[in-house]
Amino acid sequence: MRTLNVELADRSYPIRIGGGLLADPELVLPFVKSRRVAVITNNVVGPLYLRAFADGLKARGLTVTEIVLPDGEAHKDWETLNTIFDGLLSSRCDRGTTLIALGGGVVGDMVGFAAATYQRGVPFIQVPTTLLSQVDSSVGGKTAINHPLGKNMIGAFYQPRMVLADTLVLNTLPERELKAGLAEVIKYGLIRDLPFLEWIEENLERLLARDADALAEAVERSCRNKAEVVAADETEQGVRATLNLGHTFGHAIETGLGYGVWLHGEAVAAGAIMAADLSRRLGWLSDTDVERVRSIHERAGLPVKGAPLGADRYLELMAHDKKVADGTLRLVLLKAIGEAVITAEASQADIRASIEACC
Amino acid sequence: MRTLNVELADRSYPIRIGGGLLADPELVLPFVKSRRVAVITNNVVGPLYLRAFADGLKARGLTVTEIVLPDGEAHKDWETLNTIFDGLLSSRCDRGTTLIALGGGVVGDMVGFAAATYQRGVPFIQVPTTLLSQVDSSVGGKTAINHPLGKNMIGAFYQPRMVLADTLVLNTLPERELKAGLAEVIKYGLIRDLPFLEWIEENLERLLARDADALAEAVERSCRNKAEVVAADETEQGVRATLNLGHTFGHAIETGLGYGVWLHGEAVAAGAIMAADLSRRLGWLSDTDVERVRSIHERAGLPVKGAPLGADRYLELMAHDKKVADGTLRLVLLKAIGEAVITAEASQADIRASIEACC
Repeated sequence: MRTLNVELADRSYPIRIGGGLLADPELVLPFVKSRRVAVITNNVVGPLYLRAFADGLKARGLTVTEIVLPDGEAHKDWETLNTIFDGLLSSRCDRGTTLIALGGGVVGDMVGFAAATYQRGVPFIQVPTTLLSQVDSSVGGKTAINHPLGKNMIGAFYQPRMVLADTLVLNTLPERELKAGLAEVIKYGLIRDLPFLEWIEENLERLLARDADALAEAVERSCRNKAEVVAADETEQGVRATLNLGHTFGHAIETGLGYGVWLHGEAVAAGAIMAADLSRRLGWLSDTDVERVRSIHERAGLPVKGAPLGADRYLELMAHDKKVADGTLRLVLLKAIGEAVITAEASQADIRASIEACC
Repeated sequence: MRTLNVELADRSYPIRIGGGLLADPELVLPFVKSRRVAVITNNVVGPLYLRAFADGLKARGLTVTEIVLPDGEAHKDWETLNTIFDGLLSSRCDRGTTLIALGGGVVGDMVGFAAATYQRGVPFIQVPTTLLSQVDSSVGGKTAINHPLGKNMIGAFYQPRMVLADTLVLNTLPERELKAGLAEVIKYGLIRDLPFLEWIEENLERLLARDADALAEAVERSCRNKAEVVAADETEQGVRATLNLGHTFGHAIETGLGYGVWLHGEAVAAGAIMAADLSRRLGWLSDTDVERVRSIHERAGLPVKGAPLGADRYLELMAHDKKVADGTLRLVLLKAIGEAVITAEASQADIRASIEACC
């Protein structure tokens, strides 16, 4: 087992990474506030892992409420969130109840937001079961649901008590989800960790073949990057925004096509390539750099072209981005491979040109 | 103008109290983060005060989005909250937009929760227009919406940047709302401020006649009590719960009858009398004390008997209270007039007896 810490003063917490951790309830117990937990999962992960996990907790004397949500980004909305509140209230879960998110990014984001707002805040634990959620969304306390006009528009910064990433569960992950997770792994290399990018380039086939050591290494190095950035800027006043490389374009794809048509990681991959193209137009990246960005995503089996929404629609959707300040869109771009910045320097004409070139 | 401060380290903020403050936009400007605000009110307060207030801000160069909600506790729900998000997103309000709640407790609670969660948090300002919101709900950062199974079950602790209480607007307050506000004023006297209780007993007729000085005095002394308690215990780990005198019984009335049938202050008044009766059963209050509690509420024109829901239904609804811990209901009771405690000492039989005696 590997352990990293997210350093946030009195809200610091550990990330535990390893194969088979889900089978050991003792890892979770020290972070449960009272004797009461609610395990919240979805109808895909639930049949695989809920029974054993919940029974393990019950065997340690905990009272366990189980709530199963419908799967998918299309359900990351108020209606599904309300089914969590309904379940908690009808089971009389009190303020001391610890919520445990057992699932991917959608489950984690929604359970985190439910924990932030149920009775004005209860403790929660992240047990991410997809590569994407293990390397990114389970760490750092960003919680949210979607709004028809924009992704993750309603949410809170609310940190978990711990993150338990069992890399063994990645063996049951659908191929498409594995690849989508790699988009966020690659992202860390691109924005701030050139040695990690080189390691990914060398080990991509091992990752795609689900080599256990390679996956554990990728999860750990990703989480270390994430933890460092979050510790430096918990509420995204500055550097944390660089974690959003490709996300402004990507969110436009997700919202424009309807949530769930593309996976989040797929949209981020196409968005990263658009961001690289735009960085080239600003004179920051070479043609070779852009090709390097395109190539690694292509090798990972990810989309290398954006959805054909039309540039006007992209720009309209991007105007809702949370990084807009005083009416100006700010984008995460690359000064170099391994060095991201957040900038308003790109002109509308250049943004349009990159969209048109990459779709 | 009187100014109090809520001392919460880097989230400290002022409460400004006085007649006519709403006409002076300069009071608000220093607390607006960017040049963009959204003023959110309801369809009763809006026609009276929105135009002049919003125009005053526009004249100072601010961009103002106006959102008007339906009035009443029955609308303190997700559907109405979503109309706030819809309005903010369709006006492209960004993360720097300051939300201003112009209205009573329902508007303030909902706008506060919208501010806590829109794009994971934007600044907000409370401009309370009812006595109840000026003396209680606008101060201290409790924000929430109701759930069919319980009042204020979904929300956040999220502090405003300032509170602007214009006591002149109380002249347009319906009589019933004025009386409901007095319930929370009386509460401060009962739980922690005997001299204030005596002052209220002496000045109740002036308050009911809307004497400007008396109202300003009541608002200031109430806010001072609230600010002290909140500064000591922002997230209700302990003493803050005493502000909930009468609220556990009261919330049962509000939820049991359907939100909005009784005003919040009316339910709290009946609840305070039940709490006094129960305190007597524990040997803490005398018959004379209980009569004193009943009498002041009666003189204020407030209900002195609870709604006839039946004791079983009360107990069922009270089991959802946020003060339940490890399955045990904790109640705010009176050790003496002017001294509240939070306690699990009352037996189910005594609670039942008090409900039956007071309904």
